[in-house]
Amino acid sequence: MSRLGVAILGSTGSIGTQTLDVISRLPDRFRVVALAARHNRELLTAQVAAFAPDLIVASDTEPIDGHRVLPTPQGLIDAVTHPDVDIVVAATSGHDAIRATWAAIEAGKTIAMANKETIVCAGDLIIPLAAEHGVDLRPVDSEHSAIWQSLMTGPRRDLARIILTASGGPFLDKTRKELAAVTVADALAHPNWSMGSKITVDSASMMNKGLEIIEAHHLFGVPYAQIDVVIHREQIIHSIVEWDDRSAIAQLSFPDMRLPIQYALTWPDRPLSPGTPLDFTRIPTMSFQQPDEDQFPLLRLARQAGIEGGTAPTVLSAADEVAVMAFLEGRIGFVDIPAIVQGTLDAHENGPVLDLEIVFAADHWARAHAASVIGTR
Amino acid sequence: MSRLGVAILGSTGSIGTQTLDVISRLPDRFRVVALAARHNRELLTAQVAAFAPDLIVASDTEPIDGHRVLPTPQGLIDAVTHPDVDIVVAATSGHDAIRATWAAIEAGKTIAMANKETIVCAGDLIIPLAAEHGVDLRPVDSEHSAIWQSLMTGPRRDLARIILTASGGPFLDKTRKELAAVTVADALAHPNWSMGSKITVDSASMMNKGLEIIEAHHLFGVPYAQIDVVIHREQIIHSIVEWDDRSAIAQLSFPDMRLPIQYALTWPDRPLSPGTPLDFTRIPTMSFQQPDEDQFPLLRLARQAGIEGGTAPTVLSAADEVAVMAFLEGRIGFVDIPAIVQGTLDAHENGPVLDLEIVFAADHWARAHAASVIGTR
Repeated sequence: MSRLGVAILGSTGSIGTQTLDVISRLPDRFRVVALAARHNRELLTAQVAAFAPDLIVASDTEPIDGHRVLPTPQGLIDAVTHPDVDIVVAATSGHDAIRATWAAIEAGKTIAMANKETIVCAGDLIIPLAAEHGVDLRPVDSEHSAIWQSLMTGPRRDLARIILTASGGPFLDKTRKELAAVTVADALAHPNWSMGSKITVDSASMMNKGLEIIEAHHLFGVPYAQIDVVIHREQIIHSIVEWDDRSAIAQLSFPDMRLPIQYALTWPDRPLSPGTPLDFTRIPTMSFQQPDEDQFPLLRLARQAGIEGGTAPTVLSAADEVAVMAFLEGRIGFVDIPAIVQGTLDAHENGPVLDLEIVFAADHWARAHAASVIGTR
Repeated sequence: MSRLGVAILGSTGSIGTQTLDVISRLPDRFRVVALAARHNRELLTAQVAAFAPDLIVASDTEPIDGHRVLPTPQGLIDAVTHPDVDIVVAATSGHDAIRATWAAIEAGKTIAMANKETIVCAGDLIIPLAAEHGVDLRPVDSEHSAIWQSLMTGPRRDLARIILTASGGPFLDKTRKELAAVTVADALAHPNWSMGSKITVDSASMMNKGLEIIEAHHLFGVPYAQIDVVIHREQIIHSIVEWDDRSAIAQLSFPDMRLPIQYALTWPDRPLSPGTPLDFTRIPTMSFQQPDEDQFPLLRLARQAGIEGGTAPTVLSAADEVAVMAFLEGRIGFVDIPAIVQGTLDAHENGPVLDLEIVFAADHWARAHAASVIGTR
């Protein structure tokens, strides 16, 4: 078969580097056409040497080993619309990433969606756009990949519900009072996955799971009432689909982001991955419990924002990002994060998402509002 | 839609009665065309009154409420080849059942396969026959139904292995020495499922799982080296498929045979069943462990017989049935069952399965041999 061309937006991040690891093991299937990275020029330089992309995009346009470097944001558009690109791995956040994903969809490229924000904030626009252009939006999140895989076992009309599994993060056994005293170091000690700081704090607050509820709603077109969350500390089951016949289908593996990344690239094939086969001598038990929304109020706030719709999810996401950054800088406590998000949502005037500018304006407003609330504390 | 006609071979048994329960809840989809039952005339009479089948088959041909009763074995053939029958639920054992299944396949009927014996003994003939006639063999066993469902999530060439789950039965924690002292009552105390005596003893000895390995080999065309067994006491996960990409797919539900029975009838649809939705407050933990083939030698013997092929699986199954009956009658101990099966397999001269007569002859020989060994003890 001829090799598929891949553009990676965010090649030096956690998803980007793992995508390149996957591609390096499947050289007969994939070819890197474009790499885009905001930070970490040293790593980008090494990636350029290893994968020889046709296009390089960065904010710093100094040439890399004599190769031209295109500037953001236009370079992102050039990368995703390049005629040799078949699949775009969308693994950066921000407005430029949303615009680039939009352009990729209009150009008919398959999207491996590793950027929650795009779907959470602009799902009302992106999902119909993808449908209009016949474009596959393939999830990269382990939970959504699990759902995507499990949904292949039945007809959509017979879906009862989606059950997102959650590790529960490092604070699962803490009381509200104990949560008030946790430190940044505590929040960054995630039991199962190695990720960036922002997403690790979101995992500790279960905001990440809240965003995943909204993402699942959009990606799979499932009403919020049919999306549940269950805590499963061991993170072997990555999510579950339950059908009307009371039969449930789940996807399992040892935690390894390279599995969902690879599947987003190789679907419907499942060639050998660098993951570890299931070994039940290493899985003595799997546990389950219901999440407590009083302990993790962001889970409830996220679901409410999703149900409310319009620009509420954008405001939720933006306010959370500002609050998490303030927490990481030691300016606020852990339990202040949901308070700031709640306050910002309460002050927000909601409206329908008619175009990307509305999303960006809501995002801008929410960041400013959350920052001013933090500043006055 | 027009209703599908169903013939049930073994309507008064555990699978038969549960099939009728399923059908009674889906009156718009299914119509009972034929009922066949060897025993329990009282229940058969009640079923005839409730479902008004066109054909009734029993060994006692006395009319039921004025309706003609056809004799076995010819009545079974008439039932499965009836022009109004679309699906045959094969839930009886014995040579007549195998012949009736054969006739149903030749008549192009879909088979809901609830009789392990047919596949274990005659798989070498039945599977190619079904392929030749373009007939679906749909599994009814909960494990094989789970695999069937899970296999929908990838291409066959990328299958790494099948993992059959096993409850482990009531004797999981017993030593070899303790097993020598177990009683019939002990063996019949299955932790999760309510089944007939023979299959319950086979579950306690793990012979049932051994037969399922052979069944899985035939039904899914998977080499024995790619079929594993893991003990999962809680029996929420009914089996697992692992793909080459190290991603595994599993089917889960609270134990209820009506789920796999219904799916075998309604595939690919999944209408509401009488099962219970997953409730994770009721599943605090799921445990896993490797089976010990020294503790459960029939598991090893079954796998070996499957690998050996030919008439060995028939001899295994027949010798086990004779030994289990002798155990249930108090004539031999529990640990004598594998010894008798092993002795019969050792004395057996294997050969290829070229036709059903060869299967029946091997079955006859094995029963006589096992009985004579028991008689001389």
